[in-house]
Amino acid sequence: MRDNDVVWHSGAINRSRWERRNGHKSAIVWFTGLSGSGKSTLACAVEERLHGSGYRTCILDGDNLRHGLCADLGFSDEARHENIRRAGEVAKLFVDVGIIVLAAFISPFEQDRQQVRALVPAGGFFEIYCKCPIEVCEQRDVKGLFWRARRGQVRHFTGISAPYEEPVAPALTLRTDQHGIHESAESVIAMLHASGVLRLPQQQTA
Amino acid sequence: MRDNDVVWHSGAINRSRWERRNGHKSAIVWFTGLSGSGKSTLACAVEERLHGSGYRTCILDGDNLRHGLCADLGFSDEARHENIRRAGEVAKLFVDVGIIVLAAFISPFEQDRQQVRALVPAGGFFEIYCKCPIEVCEQRDVKGLFWRARRGQVRHFTGISAPYEEPVAPALTLRTDQHGIHESAESVIAMLHASGVLRLPQQQTA
Repeated sequence: MRDNDVVWHSGAINRSRWERRNGHKSAIVWFTGLSGSGKSTLACAVEERLHGSGYRTCILDGDNLRHGLCADLGFSDEARHENIRRAGEVAKLFVDVGIIVLAAFISPFEQDRQQVRALVPAGGFFEIYCKCPIEVCEQRDVKGLFWRARRGQVRHFTGISAPYEEPVAPALTLRTDQHGIHESAESVIAMLHASGVLRLPQQQTA
Repeated sequence: MRDNDVVWHSGAINRSRWERRNGHKSAIVWFTGLSGSGKSTLACAVEERLHGSGYRTCILDGDNLRHGLCADLGFSDEARHENIRRAGEVAKLFVDVGIIVLAAFISPFEQDRQQVRALVPAGGFFEIYCKCPIEVCEQRDVKGLFWRARRGQVRHFTGISAPYEEPVAPALTLRTDQHGIHESAESVIAMLHASGVLRLPQQQTA
């Protein structure tokens, strides 16, 4: 078998049908930033709000995926590329069934993030930069990783021994050291409202 | 970074909350069988029926995943193990948000299929064996692959130059050469009803 022997099957129910069923569009909301910048916390806070309003969501979390789909990957640049490639492909599968994906990944490389953007239709990818000075992330150090990284016990640690490329043109930059979780979550929701993702059919026809 | 440096984040909305929202349980319905045995066609037919009745579903198709998430994998035994491992992990992510996954994969190895079963709670995995004599699959040969495999142009072709291990204890065995698509789809739906997956809250409280 070769790759070009593989035939594509178009499923019975496409994205548009799921979006009509759900009453909103699907999209990838991609939270990027240093470890400890609040990506996962923010993604969960946004999901809680969206769920409460009846939206279909799912969380893809970098740490969680590394326990499953990406358990075979390390933290070299190459492994990080593959990690984000897989995360993007999975996010696309959720978008295909009308779901708003809240993805929280350090995703240090601009090119990887742009590759995910290219997987979904234009306007379906929102990059949220959780911007927080590394000193603040290090003070929080919820996982104790900075402490160990400073002592050389953790290799390839983003911001210390591995690079982080800031987003070039994010949909939103949130200073998570200056604003609380409530305010940040509301900013994301407002951005999604403004972009039309959360529009329900009755609002479209009104 | 090492694997055991990775902390698990529990998302805001768990499977039970999604199941309550959806009004049915989530599960993996796993179609296995030779190329040409009708797995994808049957998965789509089942999805069309479930969608029509308001259930939340998604299709994971072996051929489609090989254009995306598994585009880096070939068809050696090792690559097939990894293909099914990833498919299983993705299926689990959908189950976590309350969705009924209709997965169509040749998945020739019993061990791989059991590994997927182990990813979800007991009673959440249904193995459907699409049983069809290879002669019939070959007569259909919708993708022209048997023709080429017989001429040695396709390596590692399941049933010809690669093994297929029949399911030991499938939830359902469908002779797709003897029964039409409508009948087969109804058998799957009936099995899901009997197993309680499709039960809606009002039926549970009745």
